[in-house]
Amino acid sequence: MKLTHQAAGTFAIAPTPFHDDGRIDEASIDRLADFYTEVGCNGVTVLGIMGEAPKLDGAEAEAIVKRFIRRADKLQIVVGVSAPGFAAMRTLAHASMEAGAAAVMIAPTPNLRTDDQITTYFKQAVDAIGSDIPWVLQDYPLTLSVVMTPAVIRRIVMDNPSCVMLKHEDWPGLEKITTLRNFQKDGSLRPLSILTGNGAMFLDFEMERGADGAMTGYAFPEMLIDVVRLSKQGKRDAAHDLFDAHLPLIRYEQQAGVGLAVRKYVLHKRGVLASPAQRKPGSTLSAQAKAEVDYLLSRVARVDKRANMSPQASAAG
Amino acid sequence: MKLTHQAAGTFAIAPTPFHDDGRIDEASIDRLADFYTEVGCNGVTVLGIMGEAPKLDGAEAEAIVKRFIRRADKLQIVVGVSAPGFAAMRTLAHASMEAGAAAVMIAPTPNLRTDDQITTYFKQAVDAIGSDIPWVLQDYPLTLSVVMTPAVIRRIVMDNPSCVMLKHEDWPGLEKITTLRNFQKDGSLRPLSILTGNGAMFLDFEMERGADGAMTGYAFPEMLIDVVRLSKQGKRDAAHDLFDAHLPLIRYEQQAGVGLAVRKYVLHKRGVLASPAQRKPGSTLSAQAKAEVDYLLSRVARVDKRANMSPQASAAG
Amino acid sequence: MKLTHQAAGTFAIAPTPFHDDGRIDEASIDRLADFYTEVGCNGVTVLGIMGEAPKLDGAEAEAIVKRFIRRADKLQIVVGVSAPGFAAMRTLAHASMEAGAAAVMIAPTPNLRTDDQITTYFKQAVDAIGSDIPWVLQDYPLTLSVVMTPAVIRRIVMDNPSCVMLKHEDWPGLEKITTLRNFQKDGSLRPLSILTGNGAMFLDFEMERGADGAMTGYAFPEMLIDVVRLSKQGKRDAAHDLFDAHLPLIRYEQQAGVGLAVRKYVLHKRGVLASPAQRKPGSTLSAQAKAEVDYLLSRVARVDKRANMSPQASAAG
Amino acid sequence: MKLTHQAAGTFAIAPTPFHDDGRIDEASIDRLADFYTEVGCNGVTVLGIMGEAPKLDGAEAEAIVKRFIRRADKLQIVVGVSAPGFAAMRTLAHASMEAGAAAVMIAPTPNLRTDDQITTYFKQAVDAIGSDIPWVLQDYPLTLSVVMTPAVIRRIVMDNPSCVMLKHEDWPGLEKITTLRNFQKDGSLRPLSILTGNGAMFLDFEMERGADGAMTGYAFPEMLIDVVRLSKQGKRDAAHDLFDAHLPLIRYEQQAGVGLAVRKYVLHKRGVLASPAQRKPGSTLSAQAKAEVDYLLSRVARVDKRANMSPQASAAG
Repeated sequence: MKLTHQAAGTFAIAPTPFHDDGRIDEASIDRLADFYTEVGCNGVTVLGIMGEAPKLDGAEAEAIVKRFIRRADKLQIVVGVSAPGFAAMRTLAHASMEAGAAAVMIAPTPNLRTDDQITTYFKQAVDAIGSDIPWVLQDYPLTLSVVMTPAVIRRIVMDNPSCVMLKHEDWPGLEKITTLRNFQKDGSLRPLSILTGNGAMFLDFEMERGADGAMTGYAFPEMLIDVVRLSKQGKRDAAHDLFDAHLPLIRYEQQAGVGLAVRKYVLHKRGVLASPAQRKPGSTLSAQAKAEVDYLLSRVARVDKRANMSPQASAAG
Repeated sequence: MKLTHQAAGTFAIAPTPFHDDGRIDEASIDRLADFYTEVGCNGVTVLGIMGEAPKLDGAEAEAIVKRFIRRADKLQIVVGVSAPGFAAMRTLAHASMEAGAAAVMIAPTPNLRTDDQITTYFKQAVDAIGSDIPWVLQDYPLTLSVVMTPAVIRRIVMDNPSCVMLKHEDWPGLEKITTLRNFQKDGSLRPLSILTGNGAMFLDFEMERGADGAMTGYAFPEMLIDVVRLSKQGKRDAAHDLFDAHLPLIRYEQQAGVGLAVRKYVLHKRGVLASPAQRKPGSTLSAQAKAEVDYLLSRVARVDKRANMSPQASAAG
Repeated sequence: MKLTHQAAGTFAIAPTPFHDDGRIDEASIDRLADFYTEVGCNGVTVLGIMGEAPKLDGAEAEAIVKRFIRRADKLQIVVGVSAPGFAAMRTLAHASMEAGAAAVMIAPTPNLRTDDQITTYFKQAVDAIGSDIPWVLQDYPLTLSVVMTPAVIRRIVMDNPSCVMLKHEDWPGLEKITTLRNFQKDGSLRPLSILTGNGAMFLDFEMERGADGAMTGYAFPEMLIDVVRLSKQGKRDAAHDLFDAHLPLIRYEQQAGVGLAVRKYVLHKRGVLASPAQRKPGSTLSAQAKAEVDYLLSRVARVDKRANMSPQASAAG
Repeated sequence: MKLTHQAAGTFAIAPTPFHDDGRIDEASIDRLADFYTEVGCNGVTVLGIMGEAPKLDGAEAEAIVKRFIRRADKLQIVVGVSAPGFAAMRTLAHASMEAGAAAVMIAPTPNLRTDDQITTYFKQAVDAIGSDIPWVLQDYPLTLSVVMTPAVIRRIVMDNPSCVMLKHEDWPGLEKITTLRNFQKDGSLRPLSILTGNGAMFLDFEMERGADGAMTGYAFPEMLIDVVRLSKQGKRDAAHDLFDAHLPLIRYEQQAGVGLAVRKYVLHKRGVLASPAQRKPGSTLSAQAKAEVDYLLSRVARVDKRANMSPQASAAG
């Protein structure tokens, strides 16, 4: 089932599991797929920026995509196909869609500066992959150093009917959501799904500004799912209460560079990943950092039992 | 009283108050000085990056420094003198010290890349201002795009005896504090005060890693002071409880660009600044953003009464 | 006499002369002013990027501007007023115009990315200095990392009637001149003087594309003047012959960082500057580099006698 | 025959030939291989930055490498394997060496800043490809925005015995060659081949500073070969005379972005490439730019007959 502009809810950004020696860990892919399905995600995004995609060669990337799609067959799979060139992008996009992906995700290359350079880039990307593949536009200036105004996003969306979703992770980005939703009200922008990233650092208010859900990799997707749901139900205080309980850990996991190590550490602790290893060049956690994460988990667990990872809790679970 | 490597506690980063038409608001400078003194800050840093220093001409900068120093005469005043060139840096540094400043603060210029370029820059800066002026080394890669390893910081500190403090705001930066403190344990780094910035986003753990205090501009310096104190007293849970209550607002105030507008909005609400205005180019808050901040304040106030800004509270206060 | 869109010919970018100890060398300012007048420049630009402007404090900058204006009273003086903030820009712009400058020159700040950010910046700059001061728009992406499309330049020019000239130094930039001239033919862009910079590396073809002249600091402004003149006379081969004779040295002088040292070395050899010194941080020439420049001069002199700096030639001159 | 630190002479950077529709043009690969062999190159570098390598998918890259190696069997083939991640780098490096390449070339990823980050990166790269593959270190700060001091280059070379050559294209870079050669004289740096790039803009002096030859893609490799030879023979004036005759065209071909279009246009005119086409995103030449190149060729031809491309010359040739 292909992705449409009506997509909503929570799409988890999946890490790519590796063994300690750097080989791909297929069993953990299966566990991740099961985990995201069981907690109630609507979709999974693989090979995103936090999925260590650039560390894979072409054959590995395709194999990972196929394994996720086969296992998580109840979820919509979005595949990050951003690449330095269009040939590699096309190759992976076609392989992914043939394997059953719901859509692909494309980020701009870091060299783009002017409005015209940016809009031209996405036209050429669509030329390259074909206009029949639904795709997600990734807007992540902090990491990509490409700044897209709301008007530029509108041009990209209106130029390219196959663009069905914005992965919003500008920082700051709340006004951007409001501006885009206002474009839709005034008729200048067609329907578009907006899921938000940035490690969920602003999910509480992003939902209130009009986001359709979350697309990020926080190690407790259950929280994302609940905050998205509570917010849509209008239960503002409850949404913020749950979000705030997690925020100290969200913040810790959102650190540049080291964030992925935190995420993998927690998913390893939760029994989903066999190893927290990253491929080189990667980051690791010191003993003190691990103890800090453990402390944060224990504090989250006072409000959200799902973060309880004490031996007893595990035994009970 | 000049700054030494024994400096500790909380140094507030002062915003520069402007009238709505962009003129400097001297009365609000006085109120800021009184406010920081009354809540118990140890020092104030003026003309920092969040102090809109580059928007001032030379005469304005000197006038602001002098007014802060005269009014906040119980506090140590650190003056940001970072400049594109050394002549302007020296002029402001000398004027500040003559007026009674405790130290100056210097950030690297954004073009510096290699380790040698960075260490040479600071040697030349000290040559320019004179080796008798104590100074604070600002390490803020996210904004300045200059990356200093712990070993480079050590070289700068060991090369320049007048460097007495590190304003630490790397992101991530926890391991950096630990590494620098370990350098001191192994005898390769002399004593150095480390105060942390980054809007206090990691103050809870920075204190535990060995920071001496905070140097940042969060609109509730009372919280910074309390967290620094509780942490030094070993009251870990209490420190985190207070910190976590503020974190949703800290996070909101830490947004790039719009953060200063949040900070000035809250300080205006608190009656310290007559106007939240920034000089151009500046950021402003939409009505919705203001309502979001108000909501966050009301949530903080459930734990920390000082954030209670309801009309009744104001009347009572 | 204020600068208008009819400005043409050669404007020399003046270096700022320093003594070996870093003090400003007023006598060399006078010699520079005389030199540019005698060789037939139409104007002089002071405090440009190659004029070490950021190394001056405010008082020094004003003093240099006034001295150039007083001495070079037959030339139009353009003053670089680019600054991190508008207050310093306004202060220097007003002081310069009061002293008799013909115009000011403004470059964008390096943080600007989107088309709207760029056009907004220049509107605010004009608000700051006042709409009655003629100004030159500097387009220098290699150094400033701000990319302005021809359409953005057109918006800036059409938004701001006081913008009378483009200092063109995009790289590559030939098509940009053609596009802007075509905008004028189709009526969408008003008259605008275009002088080209970039160390004159493409002056030969820039003139053929429609430039009105040169604004750069090559140490032989006589060559710039002649190439501009020959090109306007339609003497294509003669223009290229002269240009090509100088190109090996132009290329050597155009090296990033070290270029200014070459330029000052040659102007020192020519007897215009008392010292080739730069303020710190600056570049210097090794003995081998000086010998390379000397060799290049001797080769230029085979075609252009003015580059002959052998002792005999000096004696004869 | 694998590349060693004794490599010298001229290695042409090969463009990747495409048909007008973007397909790879194998016949033109063969003609390029023959052309470089016939004019007397010592080697060819394929899939360099100017070889549009990022626009190829993995299978295409391997196919191109194999075709070049098979056809240019008298030349040493260096293969650019720079990649965002080590898996893709290893895959291409192994495929290339198995096919008979002489070495691979590795550039740093653009995110590297500190000296340690840079040296660590190359250690990890060697771990990834294996320490038995000879490799060329590419130092190209203008494009890659990674600045390596001579001391950092020395550390990389001394850390990694399989590094046999520096592709030097810093700008400015003359003192860097001298410093590295002095390191060798003082015994701190082992023997290392240094070939220079940067479009040959400084080849004349680079040879005099101690370079072993050229590795660049100027459309007249014959000139590179001759200048390298003349310089080694100590025929300084003759080397400069030939170089200077080409410099106006070298300079035109060295323009950022548009340079590759010039290079392919000339190689197309010379009958080597069937089409000057680039894959998207690419640059093209306007009619006026083509006329400018033609004019430059006619001027070069006054000194160097090989640049004569008039119909008669072709008929004669």
